[in-house]
Amino acid sequence: MNTRAPSTRGLGELAQQLRVDSVRASAAAGSGHPTSSMSAAELMAVLVARHLRYDFDRPDHPANDRFVLSKGHASPLLYSAYKAAGVVDDAELLTFRKLGSRLEGHPTPRRLPWVETATGSLGQGLPIGVGIALSGKRLDHADYRVWVLCGDSELAEGSVWEAAEHAAYERLDNLTAIVDVNRLGQRGPTRHGHDLDAYARRFRAFGWHTVEVDGHDVDAIDRAYDEAVSTSGAPTVILARTLKGKGVKAVEDHEGLHGKPLPDPEAAVAELGGPRDLNVRVQEPNARRALHAVPDGRVELPRFSRGEEVATRDAYGKALAALGTGRGEVVALDGEVSDSTRAQFFAEEHPERFFECYIAEQQMVAAAVGLSTRGWVPYASTFAAFLTRAHDFVRMASVSGAGINLVGSHAGVAIGQDGPSQMGLEDLAMFRAVHGSTVLYPCDANQTAHLVAAMADLDGVRYLRTSRGKNAVIYDPDEEFPVGGSKVLRFSEQDRVTVVAAGVTVPEALAAAEALGREGIQVRVIDLYSVKPVDRFALRQAADDTGLLMTVEDHHPEGGLGGAVLEAFQDGRPVPRFVRLAVRTMPGSAAPDEQLHAAGIDADSIAAAVQLLVEQAVVR
Amino acid sequence: MNTRAPSTRGLGELAQQLRVDSVRASAAAGSGHPTSSMSAAELMAVLVARHLRYDFDRPDHPANDRFVLSKGHASPLLYSAYKAAGVVDDAELLTFRKLGSRLEGHPTPRRLPWVETATGSLGQGLPIGVGIALSGKRLDHADYRVWVLCGDSELAEGSVWEAAEHAAYERLDNLTAIVDVNRLGQRGPTRHGHDLDAYARRFRAFGWHTVEVDGHDVDAIDRAYDEAVSTSGAPTVILARTLKGKGVKAVEDHEGLHGKPLPDPEAAVAELGGPRDLNVRVQEPNARRALHAVPDGRVELPRFSRGEEVATRDAYGKALAALGTGRGEVVALDGEVSDSTRAQFFAEEHPERFFECYIAEQQMVAAAVGLSTRGWVPYASTFAAFLTRAHDFVRMASVSGAGINLVGSHAGVAIGQDGPSQMGLEDLAMFRAVHGSTVLYPCDANQTAHLVAAMADLDGVRYLRTSRGKNAVIYDPDEEFPVGGSKVLRFSEQDRVTVVAAGVTVPEALAAAEALGREGIQVRVIDLYSVKPVDRFALRQAADDTGLLMTVEDHHPEGGLGGAVLEAFQDGRPVPRFVRLAVRTMPGSAAPDEQLHAAGIDADSIAAAVQLLVEQAVVR
Repeated sequence: MNTRAPSTRGLGELAQQLRVDSVRASAAAGSGHPTSSMSAAELMAVLVARHLRYDFDRPDHPANDRFVLSKGHASPLLYSAYKAAGVVDDAELLTFRKLGSRLEGHPTPRRLPWVETATGSLGQGLPIGVGIALSGKRLDHADYRVWVLCGDSELAEGSVWEAAEHAAYERLDNLTAIVDVNRLGQRGPTRHGHDLDAYARRFRAFGWHTVEVDGHDVDAIDRAYDEAVSTSGAPTVILARTLKGKGVKAVEDHEGLHGKPLPDPEAAVAELGGPRDLNVRVQEPNARRALHAVPDGRVELPRFSRGEEVATRDAYGKALAALGTGRGEVVALDGEVSDSTRAQFFAEEHPERFFECYIAEQQMVAAAVGLSTRGWVPYASTFAAFLTRAHDFVRMASVSGAGINLVGSHAGVAIGQDGPSQMGLEDLAMFRAVHGSTVLYPCDANQTAHLVAAMADLDGVRYLRTSRGKNAVIYDPDEEFPVGGSKVLRFSEQDRVTVVAAGVTVPEALAAAEALGREGIQVRVIDLYSVKPVDRFALRQAADDTGLLMTVEDHHPEGGLGGAVLEAFQDGRPVPRFVRLAVRTMPGSAAPDEQLHAAGIDADSIAAAVQLLVEQAVVR
Repeated sequence: MNTRAPSTRGLGELAQQLRVDSVRASAAAGSGHPTSSMSAAELMAVLVARHLRYDFDRPDHPANDRFVLSKGHASPLLYSAYKAAGVVDDAELLTFRKLGSRLEGHPTPRRLPWVETATGSLGQGLPIGVGIALSGKRLDHADYRVWVLCGDSELAEGSVWEAAEHAAYERLDNLTAIVDVNRLGQRGPTRHGHDLDAYARRFRAFGWHTVEVDGHDVDAIDRAYDEAVSTSGAPTVILARTLKGKGVKAVEDHEGLHGKPLPDPEAAVAELGGPRDLNVRVQEPNARRALHAVPDGRVELPRFSRGEEVATRDAYGKALAALGTGRGEVVALDGEVSDSTRAQFFAEEHPERFFECYIAEQQMVAAAVGLSTRGWVPYASTFAAFLTRAHDFVRMASVSGAGINLVGSHAGVAIGQDGPSQMGLEDLAMFRAVHGSTVLYPCDANQTAHLVAAMADLDGVRYLRTSRGKNAVIYDPDEEFPVGGSKVLRFSEQDRVTVVAAGVTVPEALAAAEALGREGIQVRVIDLYSVKPVDRFALRQAADDTGLLMTVEDHHPEGGLGGAVLEAFQDGRPVPRFVRLAVRTMPGSAAPDEQLHAAGIDADSIAAAVQLLVEQAVVR
């Protein structure tokens, strides 16, 4: 027998209020998802009134429970709960979806301090919740719980099953998934309708504790939440049978009404018993347990000697391990290729802060986002090519404003024999187009080490591209590499062309310039290690001095280094003449040097292109 | 008792030959994945010798079984099987991974006619196999079977579970997944090691028939394949316990040897009993059943009147339905949003050729790839934002050279209130960077209809971006829109600026030009509906005439329309001055017109930007 306030009747009333307010907010907006909110009203009411432990005045309280609305379109329900909790007033509730309102169509932490992560792309809330729960279990050692409210439609996303696998394997009993099985998707019925057991079988097979419940029975829900809290050794999923639009006959369990305000909101509010003004007292967080203290030491980055042959991926691994030694908040994740990305160097030195995500890149990036919400600074790595698997998670991380570091190794044709499936040739374009991102592409080990350290303190999504093969260190270990900067590696008053390179094409450009210099053609070489933001001043100067820029990149021609350089000239002032060398054909298997040559981005190709421009008198 | 040739002993010998040849090929290459090949040698030997029905002389035979090597890194095993089948000789086998060889590190159909689809990004073979099996079951009505050889590590990918869900729901009993459970991934042990039942539980929960088998026992494998063939109503997964590097003690079941040639290949070959020269007679395809005949009629595209208010997504749906009526090989897929993308118009008219993929974008794109291998022309649609979920599948489709049409609706801030999670603001960058892709972005209904029809006959990945809101039809229904072209919508000898727009920014640009014209500032307007390939000639002409180009796009600034325009000037000739208007801040919720204004891409913003350039005398 549950003796906690409010009573069964009180919980029912609260649920009705959440419905009424969802209907009212959507009606005021003229859009939104009231029916998707109404199905989960009891699930939400019982959670906030009886089980959530959260201090709304201190959303950063380290012992707060964490709630993730994976079915982000049910935002009216969330905002109605905020109103019931007293942190949003009725006037603000009715600004829903209007210009300037904090109450967006889908919730984002950029606007609302109580939102952990942006949702609205389905199938992301649970994987991110896994990341938060990992933090609680393995790092924070705190008692907080993570509650994720999912839709049934989104269980079709593979990312949900990556999360199911990860959570059960890590025995995340601090995680509860609540599935609002209202049987209707956007376009019509889901595959499994109200067959709760179809979902339960799947979750059980993955190792979860499952509870099936009538999602409109507040007492049953209450017991289910109690069961979740008292289950140890496994995460719990509560599968709740509900009706979309529950409580208003005109819409209840009807198809074709997804994402639409109710046809007659006033009648609906009346049918729901009219407006209420209940306040819910949310329980305080349980702060018995000590929370993580992060020792902050001195970061001693690895130092490499000029001329030493080192792969930037090796420098990444060593720098990350050193960063982890100096900064206790740094954590690392990898997608079962840590021996290749060299995240293993971190894993060996800091196993307690390393997260093996196996071959599940969406879950890896989601876990990074989740960890970042708890104040950790995650570095997640896999082959550059396979980060495309998590593009939607990266996009949503930028909507959240999450601070995460992603590292893609084995970039470009320079990997050699493995062939195009393993070559990141689209990654620069992908990461550059992410709002607020930083894109870095070092060419030597010392530069890599400095950039790995600098990334930790930037905002938003940070991307570092590393290379498989070794090349000679060209910078001094004490050289500085500001984000947004570049390095002029070769310069004379007689420069006729500027070659802009990054990563593996830097040594190629230098070799070409050397050869051309011997023939009396002086070429400037810029190392554009900061692809975004880009060093407009250095590029403008080089353009003014030499008149023609040639970019050379181990990437497809669209949106990469060449795009970054051109986009530096978008202010209406004169634009330099421009030639781009990039990977224009589909590579096959071949040795790395053969690949660079076949793609036309090696030293010989650069020198030949410059020669041609001189002969054609394109270059003065 | 199985009486088919070869005998148990013969099968064992064949498996040893496949091992020997895998070791030899990798040794000759100096790289590759022999140990991952050796674990699956019996699985492959029994398949090709006893169960696969395939005419190697006619890889396009419509009744051929289809084999997909989802664990694409085990390519030495595949190529060794080709040698045993007599279609690759020993000399070619030893060109493995060398420049110019057809035998790439991971197999691709661009080079080898017997390969259905490129693999090497794990977790993709099964989803694509589902697409092929769907074709067999629902369209071809042919007896062929689809066999997919998977690794155990790749079962961590969510895409595998999207495939598991889709295949069971569609009762694809013509599909067999064979999982080589060798317990070792690249970096170390998998989560479940040799616990076959852990996998079996998961597949059974999703509705599959499961068989567990010793993967080195040829008779047991033979029986398992028989069981798969005779199982109806559900797909079968064969979970085979194997040892990585099986047969050579120095590497068998050892960690740390993934992706490496054997340390002593000669000793290994000796231990395996030395080279063999067995030939396998692969069974002929079973062509009893009639195969699909596609009626080819006349395509009567919908026609819209100038001035009529029509959303391009509506035009897409209507044009696709019409295309489907005229062309029987056109099929459509959607990710549970066909009421929004308007793929529902096709679904209503051609239900037998419509595939509901629910909210599983990776599986949707994979199914499109699979269908394309069987000669169908797929159109797959969801919100533009959610196609990012399938980026890795799109990338791999381009490696395959697959011909697929992808359609992203609800692009950009113009969707309005739903907010950034639903706004495609990175899609143009993503699709432009895909090798060999075509990117189209129509601004009115007639243009959309023509482009939808034109897409069907292009090569590679084709992307069409549609818009949510209605806007006035500006083109005549008989106007033509060549891919790679553009339209000059406003022109005079006095033009001082060229505004390049596409999609929703075209009407904004026209309105701005109209307003500016009233103030005596003449502006040229180009509708750049073909974002890739881009109309270099028209852009060059406009640059020469007006000196300054201004691009206006409902997309982030990187890699989209502006990038496409700038990349038209990469030949070393003079580049025009350039200004870009794009979405530079993270949008919230607001009405569509408010969004365009807030992003600075509406008519007022364009006019103000031109005014400013005139006042600053940047524009002559």
